[in-house]
Amino acid sequence: MKDNAVSSCDINIGIIGYGYWGPNLVRNFAETPGARVAAVSDLDPARLAMVPRRFPTVRTTTDFRALLDDPDIDAIAIATPVHTHFELARAALSADKHVWLEKPMTERCSQARELIALAQQHRRVLLVDHTFIYTGAVAKMHELIRSGELGRIYYYDSIRVNLGLFQRDVSVIADLAVHDFSILDYLLGEHPVAVTSSGTNHFPGTPENLAYVTLFYESGTIAHANVSWLAPVKVRQILVGGSKKMITYDDLEPSEKIKVYDKGVSFVDDPEKIHEMRVGYRTGDMWAPKLAVTEALRVEGEHFVDCIVNHRTPRTDGQLGLRVVELIEAASASMRHKGETVYITHEREIAS
Amino acid sequence: MKDNAVSSCDINIGIIGYGYWGPNLVRNFAETPGARVAAVSDLDPARLAMVPRRFPTVRTTTDFRALLDDPDIDAIAIATPVHTHFELARAALSADKHVWLEKPMTERCSQARELIALAQQHRRVLLVDHTFIYTGAVAKMHELIRSGELGRIYYYDSIRVNLGLFQRDVSVIADLAVHDFSILDYLLGEHPVAVTSSGTNHFPGTPENLAYVTLFYESGTIAHANVSWLAPVKVRQILVGGSKKMITYDDLEPSEKIKVYDKGVSFVDDPEKIHEMRVGYRTGDMWAPKLAVTEALRVEGEHFVDCIVNHRTPRTDGQLGLRVVELIEAASASMRHKGETVYITHEREIAS
Amino acid sequence: MKDNAVSSCDINIGIIGYGYWGPNLVRNFAETPGARVAAVSDLDPARLAMVPRRFPTVRTTTDFRALLDDPDIDAIAIATPVHTHFELARAALSADKHVWLEKPMTERCSQARELIALAQQHRRVLLVDHTFIYTGAVAKMHELIRSGELGRIYYYDSIRVNLGLFQRDVSVIADLAVHDFSILDYLLGEHPVAVTSSGTNHFPGTPENLAYVTLFYESGTIAHANVSWLAPVKVRQILVGGSKKMITYDDLEPSEKIKVYDKGVSFVDDPEKIHEMRVGYRTGDMWAPKLAVTEALRVEGEHFVDCIVNHRTPRTDGQLGLRVVELIEAASASMRHKGETVYITHEREIAS
Amino acid sequence: MKDNAVSSCDINIGIIGYGYWGPNLVRNFAETPGARVAAVSDLDPARLAMVPRRFPTVRTTTDFRALLDDPDIDAIAIATPVHTHFELARAALSADKHVWLEKPMTERCSQARELIALAQQHRRVLLVDHTFIYTGAVAKMHELIRSGELGRIYYYDSIRVNLGLFQRDVSVIADLAVHDFSILDYLLGEHPVAVTSSGTNHFPGTPENLAYVTLFYESGTIAHANVSWLAPVKVRQILVGGSKKMITYDDLEPSEKIKVYDKGVSFVDDPEKIHEMRVGYRTGDMWAPKLAVTEALRVEGEHFVDCIVNHRTPRTDGQLGLRVVELIEAASASMRHKGETVYITHEREIAS
Repeated sequence: MKDNAVSSCDINIGIIGYGYWGPNLVRNFAETPGARVAAVSDLDPARLAMVPRRFPTVRTTTDFRALLDDPDIDAIAIATPVHTHFELARAALSADKHVWLEKPMTERCSQARELIALAQQHRRVLLVDHTFIYTGAVAKMHELIRSGELGRIYYYDSIRVNLGLFQRDVSVIADLAVHDFSILDYLLGEHPVAVTSSGTNHFPGTPENLAYVTLFYESGTIAHANVSWLAPVKVRQILVGGSKKMITYDDLEPSEKIKVYDKGVSFVDDPEKIHEMRVGYRTGDMWAPKLAVTEALRVEGEHFVDCIVNHRTPRTDGQLGLRVVELIEAASASMRHKGETVYITHEREIAS
Repeated sequence: MKDNAVSSCDINIGIIGYGYWGPNLVRNFAETPGARVAAVSDLDPARLAMVPRRFPTVRTTTDFRALLDDPDIDAIAIATPVHTHFELARAALSADKHVWLEKPMTERCSQARELIALAQQHRRVLLVDHTFIYTGAVAKMHELIRSGELGRIYYYDSIRVNLGLFQRDVSVIADLAVHDFSILDYLLGEHPVAVTSSGTNHFPGTPENLAYVTLFYESGTIAHANVSWLAPVKVRQILVGGSKKMITYDDLEPSEKIKVYDKGVSFVDDPEKIHEMRVGYRTGDMWAPKLAVTEALRVEGEHFVDCIVNHRTPRTDGQLGLRVVELIEAASASMRHKGETVYITHEREIAS
Repeated sequence: MKDNAVSSCDINIGIIGYGYWGPNLVRNFAETPGARVAAVSDLDPARLAMVPRRFPTVRTTTDFRALLDDPDIDAIAIATPVHTHFELARAALSADKHVWLEKPMTERCSQARELIALAQQHRRVLLVDHTFIYTGAVAKMHELIRSGELGRIYYYDSIRVNLGLFQRDVSVIADLAVHDFSILDYLLGEHPVAVTSSGTNHFPGTPENLAYVTLFYESGTIAHANVSWLAPVKVRQILVGGSKKMITYDDLEPSEKIKVYDKGVSFVDDPEKIHEMRVGYRTGDMWAPKLAVTEALRVEGEHFVDCIVNHRTPRTDGQLGLRVVELIEAASASMRHKGETVYITHEREIAS
Repeated sequence: MKDNAVSSCDINIGIIGYGYWGPNLVRNFAETPGARVAAVSDLDPARLAMVPRRFPTVRTTTDFRALLDDPDIDAIAIATPVHTHFELARAALSADKHVWLEKPMTERCSQARELIALAQQHRRVLLVDHTFIYTGAVAKMHELIRSGELGRIYYYDSIRVNLGLFQRDVSVIADLAVHDFSILDYLLGEHPVAVTSSGTNHFPGTPENLAYVTLFYESGTIAHANVSWLAPVKVRQILVGGSKKMITYDDLEPSEKIKVYDKGVSFVDDPEKIHEMRVGYRTGDMWAPKLAVTEALRVEGEHFVDCIVNHRTPRTDGQLGLRVVELIEAASASMRHKGETVYITHEREIAS
């Protein structure tokens, strides 16, 4: 538990947007050591009225500019619809505030690049809220993959389907596949070279509610995300296949979310056996490692404070946010053209 | 149980190929009322030697022509590698035999068309062994979809993954997605207008071991098959979403393979509510209907005998076999071109 | 949502005990229409200090008598250790307060009977907090059993096991089997005639941490509860077998907690067939009914308010609470004597 | 594969009883290296007629004495109803044959003791067919428990329930709990000191179809078996809790039957902390070891041959068979007396 005495060193945070996600951010920062929620803004007075009942000491305003103008506020967390991300984050960085920005970062890559430049110029922390990166499950997968324990990564296969919630202004790719794009970026440290995607909206005039996205990597890894708002059952399952071991990650399992299989296929390139099947199978134990159980949002909140205090770069910085927006753009473009391959060209480094 | 006395009316069957699937066919026809296994041929004498131990009255030969030349043999079942299907089936039909042909029917569409024509010309039954069509689960899905109980079909989504068995001469599409192609044909009674597919072979010189296939239908239905020989766990799961109800089909469940969900999304096209979310959700009971439990191969065997005796067209006739080969060809072509859309043009009717 | 304006008709509730369960009661009554949390008492000032942070308008005190003396307080909710239940509830009823009492009601039957008499004498509502009775799952089971849809009830079989939390002063029977005792009472409307129980404490000086309880009913129904704090996995599963249908209830399933099986055994009492097996099997569809999703504690809170306002008897009244204490006493006595049968004699009616 | 040439060293086996289990024994011994099925006897000519169709070289007879009189037959496998076990096994041993006897060994302990003495006297192998002992899963549990990896064993908890098959002449204890009695004997190497059991037959005049058995051990271990022929779902699940680790064994899992949990409870006997909870929890990884996949019956068949050839004592010898019969007798006696404790007194050694 955080000490209730407010320290003068606490990072004062203003939160813009008190809709679906905003209350989680307020609760989380209220309980994060080293942070203090100073104020909340929302256009809707009815929503704002809910703040003091739960958080009597937090100020409220319908004008987000009041937060930017407040010299006591160090950081701004933005939890508003995607089409407002760019303007709000730009204004906050320009006002010399650190920024916590909901995913996806922006609508377009050009906007994401401008925010990155602005953050560098003002020497402010810019964290994009890809919460999955801070879960114990993804941390464990990262450890297993980066340590080489899985061997060469053959594929990543994800299913994220359930009934609803249909979004009005973004497709199921920006809503659900966005999680796979950030997880893939973090796990592989490699950016795809090509994307194809198919999808459909079964109701005219609405965004795509079901999509299949395939990502191709130079290393030979192939990744696939099956996302839908129209499934009768909820599934959150990822398979990762490596040359040495394979992983299943079922996010709906209360425990044992991650299972590591000592299974694999080895290719026997023996010219003598040219006419025989040259594939060998290996099957061994399965192992479900204990995972860190701290709530991901808490880990992320403490990481944000640490980045501000110690001048560090967030694990989910603007660069990662930009790469995710690139993939959303590419997958959406492919989907509009019935699965045409979209090539991704860039010289950027991927942080490992 | 079949009466053990051999009736003079029994259909005498000769089986070509005693490898992986052949023994199942011999056992099955041996127990099918109205059928009798007369002889088995295989190029490998070691395999042939296993026949008399289990089936002492069945003759064996290394020369399949002996079966075609035998006037007492009415029908030939072919369970050999795909590249031999066309030649063997052509020879059998030309010898006035009824033909049971393993799936996929042929390597190329042109070959399938030639076999269909030959069967018509010789007035012989030509059944392609798409066994799934004869399962209680697919029969129940067919009943639910064709009766309109599911409403308009929005999507069909299939996962067929497991570790191995890598095939030497066909890709994972011809091995696993072939099941979805036949099930879709039977369930929807509609042929896709376009196909895209991505896949990869992680071992140079081998067929693709992992593939994603998307099928587009004129009615708006979208279908997807995720197939792989490289997964640590075995999954055989299909989701079918309709405007009224939705189905899950888990083939690995010992009971309750089919679950019907009274869940759905309704689109409210109200111009007054243009700025609100126009989607309504419905959620109700789930229901797992009792399924017929007769082994599919037995159902199929009896159906074959019935088609021969009563001059009927098999549920999985050459036309269905051809349409499946078309989809394999189209998906393979798309896969070779990184997911390029392949359009399917034809004027053929789909049997409903 | 409840109207935030406090109505003069609201039931004012004082809560004694702010340990594990107390905060849930405060939150729940704070959100229950027609109720208002007036004050909280706890012996521990540190716990009390947590109240105003979340509920600034709620008064706090370390002396529970302050709540009893307050004429504005209508009802007292008691969430303290079991050994204090009797004294606190007696004082509250004597002070003319309605009482909400944590389960198990009291340590001994004689105490429960005294509380029932006191509530009658003061014409106050006495509700024992057996929350499971207010879940959608138990409500559905009750409906299915009482309507006769399951036929004659053959058995009830429950497993409630997981790792920890070891209780200091009550055994696993009072902690976990208590749920089955209340559910059985509600579902069957019949009180057992005999109880046997075996159990063990693996750590000397601690209460039993694992127990098996069997209940025998005059109607022939048999019930069994397997409860443990020492299992590596969490299981909350109940089977109910009837002559017409059978139910499984898995409380850990996020959806489809209740499944109804059209399966059964019919006994053919045909003297002609005396030497044959006289049992027939029936197997049909499975059906998972949609369940009410309102949180059980909310349903229970509104029921408490309704009972006070409209002078009704709670579904989980003192009589039910007493019968549960009787079973805890009987099972504990049997367990101390290595499973000796304890007979239950009483003339009381069971509410149906 | 076994060499098909019949060696003169092969053990010739005669099988008495060709009902439910007999055909499995014939198939199994037909494929066991070193064994040869010489003849089968059954009272029912219709059943006997099925033998030559699958096994043309095996002789058949309706008179089991023909098998005992045949000097070429070395061993007799008995797969007949329980009430015939004693007479048939006594006759076979008296005729100097090795004996493979279906479980449960006999109806009464005195009979089992007589068979043990007879086998010793004639220096013949007497194996009781407790097949579970030869599974990869039980072998792995044995290894984990006997190596001390689980620590002190706190409990064994088993559920074996499903719909049917109601037995005519034995109760569900002799049909299903018998498996737990043999597994417990093998795993623990300790015989219970007391047994209590409750059960019921819902159909007058039939054996108990549902029972709960609790076994008490001197070491403090407690074991429980919940067995039923009247459950809507099939469950085969065992939990074993140790002071260091715990195991779940789900026999219906196609893979990962055994899971080992690094979870536990430690008791802190600190007089200073007399008023605090003195129990500590530990939770770590889960691990599913790879299991041997050879069919248990094959392992058991080869073991029988090995015992005969090399004069070894079977893992499931008459002593183990006797101890299992003792537990069936004790549990049945307790069940007839509504759960009264039955004490087991004996001085026999348990093989470890």
